[in-house]
Amino acid sequence: MAASEEFLTFPPQDALRLEPHLPPAAGAEGAGRITQDGRRRPFVTLTFATSLDSSLALAPGVRTALSGPQSKAMTHFLRSRHAAICVGVGTAVADDPGLNCRLAAPADTAAAAAAAAAAAAAAATQHRHQHQPRPIVIDPHGRWALGEDSKVVQLARAGRGLAPYIVASAAPPAKRRELLESIGGKYLFVAAATSEAGNGVARFRWADVLAAVAAEGLDSIMIEGGGQVINSLLAPPDSSLIDSVIVTIAPTWLGQGGVVVSPPRTVDGSGNPAPPMRLADVSWHPLGEDIVLCGRISRSSE
Amino acid sequence: MAASEEFLTFPPQDALRLEPHLPPAAGAEGAGRITQDGRRRPFVTLTFATSLDSSLALAPGVRTALSGPQSKAMTHFLRSRHAAICVGVGTAVADDPGLNCRLAAPADTAAAAAAAAAAAAAAATQHRHQHQPRPIVIDPHGRWALGEDSKVVQLARAGRGLAPYIVASAAPPAKRRELLESIGGKYLFVAAATSEAGNGVARFRWADVLAAVAAEGLDSIMIEGGGQVINSLLAPPDSSLIDSVIVTIAPTWLGQGGVVVSPPRTVDGSGNPAPPMRLADVSWHPLGEDIVLCGRISRSSE
Ligand SMILES: NC(=O)c1ccc[n+]([C@@H]2O[C@H](COP(=O)([O-])OP(=O)(O)OC[C@H]3O[C@@H](n4cnc5c(N)ncnc54)[C@H](OP(=O)(O)O)[C@@H]3O)[C@@H](O)[C@H]2O)c1
Ligand SMILES: NC(=O)c1ccc[n+]([C@@H]2O[C@H](COP(=O)([O-])OP(=O)(O)OC[C@H]3O[C@@H](n4cnc5c(N)ncnc54)[C@H](OP(=O)(O)O)[C@@H]3O)[C@@H](O)[C@H]2O)c1
Repeated sequence: MAASEEFLTFPPQDALRLEPHLPPAAGAEGAGRITQDGRRRPFVTLTFATSLDSSLALAPGVRTALSGPQSKAMTHFLRSRHAAICVGVGTAVADDPGLNCRLAAPADTAAAAAAAAAAAAAAATQHRHQHQPRPIVIDPHGRWALGEDSKVVQLARAGRGLAPYIVASAAPPAKRRELLESIGGKYLFVAAATSEAGNGVARFRWADVLAAVAAEGLDSIMIEGGGQVINSLLAPPDSSLIDSVIVTIAPTWLGQGGVVVSPPRTVDGSGNPAPPMRLADVSWHPLGEDIVLCGRISRSSE
Repeated sequence: MAASEEFLTFPPQDALRLEPHLPPAAGAEGAGRITQDGRRRPFVTLTFATSLDSSLALAPGVRTALSGPQSKAMTHFLRSRHAAICVGVGTAVADDPGLNCRLAAPADTAAAAAAAAAAAAAAATQHRHQHQPRPIVIDPHGRWALGEDSKVVQLARAGRGLAPYIVASAAPPAKRRELLESIGGKYLFVAAATSEAGNGVARFRWADVLAAVAAEGLDSIMIEGGGQVINSLLAPPDSSLIDSVIVTIAPTWLGQGGVVVSPPRTVDGSGNPAPPMRLADVSWHPLGEDIVLCGRISRSSE
């Protein structure tokens, strides 16, 4: 078994500070939103960890010591509070990620949480009972060679994670589909537009991806990376789909040439550069050596 | 008069939190260090404000709303506590900066500061009496067309700032030198090595620049920017010259194509990528909507 049995704990007092930035409890009002075009979409949390120079990794696939153990535990706490967790095929191919939740069972934390404000603590534990998020992998060109030795497959077979849903634009090889379906996963087909670069590359509109996710009954999704996924989501108008932003910054510079988070520059109707994208309702929370930034995309900067 | 008369105040409780990261009082032990090669050098504080995507500005010379008013006041507080303040010619040309200290006179803040811990407050006010930092401009190719309408010249003539010292590698036009000397400034000549890119561009070693600064009796310097200055200072081995790092991060993304802080990638003796540069003794301080990171370059990451 490749995956380790390590379990993580996240202190209830830290969890409480994140509470206002988390999706409402499943089924509660606000869980899943109706978009302007009348389609349901999940609550979207954008979350990732960067260096001071906004790098996610030294290079795609290079395991990069970045944020500390507390931040890692936070990621798993967030996974425990979302119905789905999304990465791009770049991350899937480079990292072979587990995409499961390794937060310790609620027994470990419920007692401590009870000491905290009761209502918030109840909300905080409600989702935790063995909850595993559904992995969603954005793979327009079928590049992810899912196989028996993929970590997500092993975890799903071991009952320690859910099988992925792969967002694709064309039919995959039959064998891969069979494997995926044998562990409870599936393909979600979404129509791709060609990218603006006009190079024949298939690109999804995030509204379409999120509608497909909502159609599966998944009412919240955390989008974790990598760089291209984040930058395409931060590009207006798609950025208006983000409900909550939770960014961890580690006090380190990875240096030029990393996998960088930085949205594309956009221009307004008259061709002038659009204003920079600001966060609103900002709060900063130290976590070990790192800082966690919580906020939401300001409506004025869309 | 182009420069405004605006004065800034910085709360004593915020000043106290920065105290451990500031240069020792002038003349105190530790003010000015001896380097390995036996030369004196000033206490070096690297300080700047970036976006989440590590941009200093949308583009060189584009005034960019980034950090808030409190962070601006902090910059002027830091200027009040350093003998010199350094920017590159890129910033001098693009921004026509004032490079003076506009912190309100000590009377405004001394009373409030007295309420705080007495010793620290004393240290905090000691430097404040009308102190103006000496502007140091790094201009290897004589690109800065200093003239009567330059803001630093106007401020120096008005007694509201000091005339700059320009770090150069070759003799400037006589008229420019006369102007500079007429207001109390001068050229500091430093031998330039050619850049590693082998394109004939003159590059200073920071140890040489800092030795020239120390030779002028300046025992502390804050290096403010812009991007190229910061990135060249963050490149090992020069990064070992930094005593203190104070970075303000604003909750905004400026987007691709900005003036980015990110040190060059370096390789160790065997050609392997050097480890990322980490900060040690890290602390984070919210300031308005921004966060201020204080730390020092970790010896292990040099
Ligand atoms: N620090 C963190 O928090 C964190 C989190 C996650 C990942 N990472 C790191 O990030 C790195 C990978 O980043 P990456 O930028 O290379 O890859 P990525 O963002 O994971 O995946 C990029 C790929 O996803 C597809 N894609 C993205 N947006 C799309 C859209 N709107 N429509 C259609 N397809 C879309 C494209 O596939 P096609 O090329 O096939 O078109 C694209 O090449 C890894 O090193 C990983 O470790 C870090
Ligand atoms: N947000 C902030 O805190 C902040 C602070 C300061 C500046 N800024 C912004 O930064 C922008 C300017 O940045 P920039 O990167 O274009 O310019 P810069 O760093 O101010 O100046 C770059 C120039 O300085 C010279 N230089 C730098 N390092 C050198 C070295 N080691 N040896 C010799 N010469 C050296 C070079 O001159 P040559 O080209 O002649 O060789 C280089 O082109 C402006 O938009 C400004 O507003 C922002």
